[in-house]
Amino acid sequence: MRKGTGGQDFVETVINVRYAETDQMGIVYYANYLVWFEVGRVAWCRARGFSYKDLEEQHGRMMVVAEATCRYKAPAHFDEDVCIRTAVGSATDKVIRFCYEIRNHRTAQLLATGESTHVVTDRDFHPARLPEKIRKFFQLQPRN
Amino acid sequence: MRKGTGGQDFVETVINVRYAETDQMGIVYYANYLVWFEVGRVAWCRARGFSYKDLEEQHGRMMVVAEATCRYKAPAHFDEDVCIRTAVGSATDKVIRFCYEIRNHRTAQLLATGESTHVVTDRDFHPARLPEKIRKFFQLQPRN
Amino acid sequence: MRKGTGGQDFVETVINVRYAETDQMGIVYYANYLVWFEVGRVAWCRARGFSYKDLEEQHGRMMVVAEATCRYKAPAHFDEDVCIRTAVGSATDKVIRFCYEIRNHRTAQLLATGESTHVVTDRDFHPARLPEKIRKFFQLQPRN
Amino acid sequence: MRKGTGGQDFVETVINVRYAETDQMGIVYYANYLVWFEVGRVAWCRARGFSYKDLEEQHGRMMVVAEATCRYKAPAHFDEDVCIRTAVGSATDKVIRFCYEIRNHRTAQLLATGESTHVVTDRDFHPARLPEKIRKFFQLQPRN
Repeated sequence: MRKGTGGQDFVETVINVRYAETDQMGIVYYANYLVWFEVGRVAWCRARGFSYKDLEEQHGRMMVVAEATCRYKAPAHFDEDVCIRTAVGSATDKVIRFCYEIRNHRTAQLLATGESTHVVTDRDFHPARLPEKIRKFFQLQPRN
Repeated sequence: MRKGTGGQDFVETVINVRYAETDQMGIVYYANYLVWFEVGRVAWCRARGFSYKDLEEQHGRMMVVAEATCRYKAPAHFDEDVCIRTAVGSATDKVIRFCYEIRNHRTAQLLATGESTHVVTDRDFHPARLPEKIRKFFQLQPRN
Repeated sequence: MRKGTGGQDFVETVINVRYAETDQMGIVYYANYLVWFEVGRVAWCRARGFSYKDLEEQHGRMMVVAEATCRYKAPAHFDEDVCIRTAVGSATDKVIRFCYEIRNHRTAQLLATGESTHVVTDRDFHPARLPEKIRKFFQLQPRN
Repeated sequence: MRKGTGGQDFVETVINVRYAETDQMGIVYYANYLVWFEVGRVAWCRARGFSYKDLEEQHGRMMVVAEATCRYKAPAHFDEDVCIRTAVGSATDKVIRFCYEIRNHRTAQLLATGESTHVVTDRDFHPARLPEKIRKFFQLQPRN
């Protein structure tokens, strides 16, 4: 875990690029970076001390994506190890914004940056709030 | 709809190969044929007169895959139209077997053949039977 | 083809949501919208009179994505027909920007909007220009 | 690495199930097991001492899939660690057959088994032979 440029703590997770993730340009297909962002979010939750799976299953809360952006700086290739770096840019108990960096794990070359914004909902996709037990992981104060 | 070699009625649906479906070999990645088989199953249901979506939503029945096989004869490429031909090889109200042919739509060249076997379950993945209203589409006699 | 709000001509193509495109929330997984954007780009090229495949194969030019954004307004579900509406927001012979709207085809409900920016390159990913024969499709003047 | 039932040495690699890999049944979509098989093949090559990437890039040989089968025993779920166990069932310098087991990594429960058959080709998809340097990894004798 390293400090991000904006003061965020980035959580790092490393994956190996799958053949399935490439396209006929010989590089990773652009939509797969959003899959990697999601892998980063799950790793972020785990590193913070809770499981995204439990948030859904035990607390009945989902983080439904409202917006996602990716800027592609350099291509990723099959069998490269890429480091997914994930931080929370901002958080309330209703809206959470994650930031990402994708880097070549060996060279540290920046491959992509991105953000995603998520709305907390219940299982029926209605707006909701983060459960009390989870708020602290986002450094939110307990509600009175 | 044409008669298959085994006497089956094949339902045909045509899709255009997506860039996302290719890999760095420059051809369609092999797992995507199973996605196409599923597109074929949905088209088969629709052609027979019912919706797979309704089977899940209204009848609470799922067709959980137990086995799938694909034989790859010739590669498919980006932007080609491929014809997915789907038939039911055998059916009871508990187990259904689909057969598939994937052909180049323009040349009729055979690209792949395959089969998949599905077990009818309820929403909790317990073995179940096809609902009465759906049995006829698989040419099954009503149960007494 | 309809005029977009910004004066763009949107090209429309309709797809049926695949089971494979859903996730355990019961809605379409967010990365798949970028796949749909690509389907929209290919349809846009075809409607304009050229093939993206030929751009790569015959002209040796690729449109490498530099940035992509999607805003998710309402979820898409399995077996729904969605209309992908694609327009060119701006174009030079080096950089092209596409805009997208994803709508439920039956109800016209807006499901998502997005943009993607592409850099024209040669096969080695070096910056290049659109070939003369293709420039007109982007309403670019011939170069002297 | 453990001995398989058929005397094969299985190479094991563990992955964490991605949200993207689930479908609206709440379990991993069936085509993704073929992606996992491919992850297993890459891990097998690496464990044996060579890189599949190099086989393509340096030796100009590809292992084009001719057939793939998967038998689904129990569903895999989001965020579970699954162990992909890969062995070579048979190999000549022209045709290679891999076998797979997918297990829940924590409980060792068997989730799926499968096989895939691959034909060695050159870059133009013409039948070819494994390069001398690679033959030994498949326990093939040098050719005279």
